[in-house]
Amino acid sequence: MTYADQVLWNKDGLVPAITQDALSGRVLVLAWMNREALETTVAEQRAVYWSRSRNKLWRKGEESGNILRLIEVQIDCDSDAILLKVEAVNGIACHTGRESCFFKTLHDDNWEIVESTVKKPKVIGP
Amino acid sequence: MTYADQVLWNKDGLVPAITQDALSGRVLVLAWMNREALETTVAEQRAVYWSRSRNKLWRKGEESGNILRLIEVQIDCDSDAILLKVEAVNGIACHTGRESCFFKTLHDDNWEIVESTVKKPKVIGP
Repeated sequence: MTYADQVLWNKDGLVPAITQDALSGRVLVLAWMNREALETTVAEQRAVYWSRSRNKLWRKGEESGNILRLIEVQIDCDSDAILLKVEAVNGIACHTGRESCFFKTLHDDNWEIVESTVKKPKVIGP
Repeated sequence: MTYADQVLWNKDGLVPAITQDALSGRVLVLAWMNREALETTVAEQRAVYWSRSRNKLWRKGEESGNILRLIEVQIDCDSDAILLKVEAVNGIACHTGRESCFFKTLHDDNWEIVESTVKKPKVIGP
């Protein structure tokens, strides 16, 4: 049984993958992986997800250059969630041009943007 | 429109919630929330999830006492993932008695346990 066989894939064959900056600990992205995405992540040592909207393998940074280099892969106690620890080579993980996709914080019942863009979003691809 | 209306709930009415130690940055748990769980988390200032196995609201630590006190709630760019920053009052978030549910790391194609228990698992409830 391989490491990928031990993952509890959901009925769509996917598992949620949290991606965290290995150095700062900041959570950057929550995305999804199928078996091929996980195996490609490990083989290529970079974050590769499954795009549910485009229905294809998504090599993070393939257009933008904002690659997430793999440092470590972990799995949780139930084997139904993955944690990638990465180095964000350009310091940007979000398609909006921010370091992290988590840039809105709940304040007084409103989601407030608490982080500005590192780079203009129009120049950022997937 | 309330903050909960702005969450992109999936077809089961759920959203994945990453829970992170606010101080250390360590990712502790990936669990799921329905609308009631998110609203209860905010109202009670502690992590409250939706248990998909027990099909009911899950006030983390309700039996074990391992409460996760809420520090901050964030949402991602697509509004389909939540990030809770918490204080783990007993330093334990996993039902196995460990600080984090992510205690297995991929080494040479095997998931290896890299963290021991803080407390014996048999005394830990949900």
